[in-house]
Amino acid sequence: MVNTLLLPELREMLADGNRAELEEFCSALNAGRTAEFMEGLTTDQAWQVLMHAAAPRRAEIFSHFPEESQLAILRQEDPAQIAELIGELAADDRVDLLQGLSEARVNEILPLLTAADRRDIQRLRAYPEGTAGSIMTTEMAKLDENLTVRQALDELANQSQFFETIYYLFIVADDNQLRGVVSARQLVTALRTPQLQLSELIETDVVTALTTEDQESVAAKVERFNLLAIPVVDESRRLVGIITHDDIIDVVREELNEDAQQMAAISPLDTDFLRIGLLTLSWKRGIWLAILFFTALFTAFALKFYEAELDRFAWLAWFIPLIISSGGNSGSQSATLVITGMTSGTLRLKNWKTVMAREWIVSMLLGAFVASFGLFVAIVVAPTPRDALVIPITLFFVVMCGCFCGAALPMIFKRLGLDPALMSNPFVAGIVDILGIVIYLNVARMMLS
Amino acid sequence: MVNTLLLPELREMLADGNRAELEEFCSALNAGRTAEFMEGLTTDQAWQVLMHAAAPRRAEIFSHFPEESQLAILRQEDPAQIAELIGELAADDRVDLLQGLSEARVNEILPLLTAADRRDIQRLRAYPEGTAGSIMTTEMAKLDENLTVRQALDELANQSQFFETIYYLFIVADDNQLRGVVSARQLVTALRTPQLQLSELIETDVVTALTTEDQESVAAKVERFNLLAIPVVDESRRLVGIITHDDIIDVVREELNEDAQQMAAISPLDTDFLRIGLLTLSWKRGIWLAILFFTALFTAFALKFYEAELDRFAWLAWFIPLIISSGGNSGSQSATLVITGMTSGTLRLKNWKTVMAREWIVSMLLGAFVASFGLFVAIVVAPTPRDALVIPITLFFVVMCGCFCGAALPMIFKRLGLDPALMSNPFVAGIVDILGIVIYLNVARMMLS
Repeated sequence: MVNTLLLPELREMLADGNRAELEEFCSALNAGRTAEFMEGLTTDQAWQVLMHAAAPRRAEIFSHFPEESQLAILRQEDPAQIAELIGELAADDRVDLLQGLSEARVNEILPLLTAADRRDIQRLRAYPEGTAGSIMTTEMAKLDENLTVRQALDELANQSQFFETIYYLFIVADDNQLRGVVSARQLVTALRTPQLQLSELIETDVVTALTTEDQESVAAKVERFNLLAIPVVDESRRLVGIITHDDIIDVVREELNEDAQQMAAISPLDTDFLRIGLLTLSWKRGIWLAILFFTALFTAFALKFYEAELDRFAWLAWFIPLIISSGGNSGSQSATLVITGMTSGTLRLKNWKTVMAREWIVSMLLGAFVASFGLFVAIVVAPTPRDALVIPITLFFVVMCGCFCGAALPMIFKRLGLDPALMSNPFVAGIVDILGIVIYLNVARMMLS
Repeated sequence: MVNTLLLPELREMLADGNRAELEEFCSALNAGRTAEFMEGLTTDQAWQVLMHAAAPRRAEIFSHFPEESQLAILRQEDPAQIAELIGELAADDRVDLLQGLSEARVNEILPLLTAADRRDIQRLRAYPEGTAGSIMTTEMAKLDENLTVRQALDELANQSQFFETIYYLFIVADDNQLRGVVSARQLVTALRTPQLQLSELIETDVVTALTTEDQESVAAKVERFNLLAIPVVDESRRLVGIITHDDIIDVVREELNEDAQQMAAISPLDTDFLRIGLLTLSWKRGIWLAILFFTALFTAFALKFYEAELDRFAWLAWFIPLIISSGGNSGSQSATLVITGMTSGTLRLKNWKTVMAREWIVSMLLGAFVASFGLFVAIVVAPTPRDALVIPITLFFVVMCGCFCGAALPMIFKRLGLDPALMSNPFVAGIVDILGIVIYLNVARMMLS
């Protein structure tokens, strides 16, 4: 969604070197909106426009660019100017961006930063991908509990540009030990008693994340406790960073996309679809295609086993794809409902009896529904009406079997402590395919003669 | 994840009627954690414990209960006490909860609320599901631009318990017209000049949501502009509510789950899997099973068309499920990658050439990989090595065809202005099934004789 409203004007200002108007453009609007208006510019043009903003404002506008534009700028513009920009960016964002640059480019930029920034970046880069440490930022308000409300507010007023959020003040002892938290809301409410010490307001029962904690578990805590930010501590409960609500949205999105990919039988990509290496991508897909191939191989054995029936009643073979896809589709539906229910917390393992009872009823309805279409079609094809009954009877049981397996398998995986999304839809479908063929040819064996 | 650490103690306190200890339990911890410790209690026990908390604290703990426990309490406890509780809950949360009660129960509770609360609830209930109006809350700080920084802070200090967030102050003219916003961060930074008027700090370029706007579009704005809360206005730009960051996480989760369900060929449930009526659920699944059934019907026609080949080479039929599932699985993989890429914004329609070029390479690698397994298997079964070649050659082209359709179809849907997730994985698989059979039997016709 490129907003082209101001593009011609912007290009004209650049061509004319109209300093005053460019400065006005950079400062007049909300930073997010300024970034939106610049989306149609080339990398160089965008950077030239940004040079007309003061350094902090420049970083603010830049942080609203799409990631690909950000990386293009970091790759090709002057290293000294880039270093200045990076100095102004939020600690967590710049680490993410540097991840997208070549090692050579990073080594060109890093020495131009202040020693403090460089240390900070190197510390954050050391945390493994997917942990709380890797998504946290280090710019939070750390205060001493002996400060008064008034002093704390003054401190905030002077330092606020250095903090990612001023809405939680973290109270630390010497050695950065986390003692508790005071919210800006409490501080404002306590304004009538400005001499009160923070130690009177402190909430010591703080929900924290460990640096090594999985980001999904951190997101669950933030969601459950409705936090604006969660403090990140190391093993000795020293405060080392915070993770804010906007990063949590990214985590939720990332995790749900990973689940969707797993459900479609792809090992999690860990990076964007367009950026991942083609060999890596092929491997993450191929390994699953191979597993599913060997599952599907059993269908070939099953069909060979019923060779005699297939030889005598050739028309049976025509319905094989129809029957197994009906089973596979109802299985995928059930599996997806159970998996998304479990990841969003609306369905718990202890509800398994309810789930299975409900699936039982739904699967009978669905089975009967699909079977009725099947009857209609089979009557046209099969030699006698009695023979035709093989198709609807099979469809009824195959759909039931699909629903049953689809609902049960992810819950069994969860019970075993595995990720239910691993029980991918194609895998459920593969198992139901085999069962479907066995059902089909046994029904045929009984009905036909 | 039920925390049973304090359960025996809690039950004992209740049995002993130990008032002091129960009051201590209700007030000592973080409200979220208090709720966690109560999860193993029965509905009645939980309510009895809550009666030992002051009304606002009671509502706070209650708001951290799982939704099913909240509804159980609202359904069965004393209406007058429930009305008191509802009076304390956040405006958006209580409307959501009332949605889960019977009309009779709602009519029992509503008259016991204050007139203001009742009006507020009825206004919010009027917005259709899925719009900004239906998820907003009405408790925000509205101030006049002529107030000074000092006066604004005093106002916040006095009123903060009535606001869902104090971190944005909305500046309105008479008639509630939204003029702009001042953040608490700006206010704190301006503390050194307490006589400054808000009109000096006001940011007038505010990102807003319309009451009728789709919640997904609202979530996109909040994510894009990294907002803590977004103001909701009506057509005449009157401020009627706000939506806070925690509700946005719920929207993102809901929308992504809906996508996942659509990808598995289920019409969006609009409610929890365990709460939806079984007939509705069957309909939302059955309609898609029917569509997919009629797609799959073409496979039967295709197989009938190649009757002669299947009669002469009976072993060809054994591999039908294996071949179509390989095509369907690679198609689902591609479709899921493209759909999740588009919904998360990392893949845009303008990248379609890159996507197809990359799929081309990946599909050849995957096709060759799967074909190599196929060759191995076919050699065992087929009468001659030359005959066996039918299987790997077919697999190679079927996998390529799956990847191609899987990647292209969602982008075509998007281009047509439709939801790409509608191009569900089973639908892609269904189309690939038909193409797979056509490829298979044509390869067979050419190779065998």
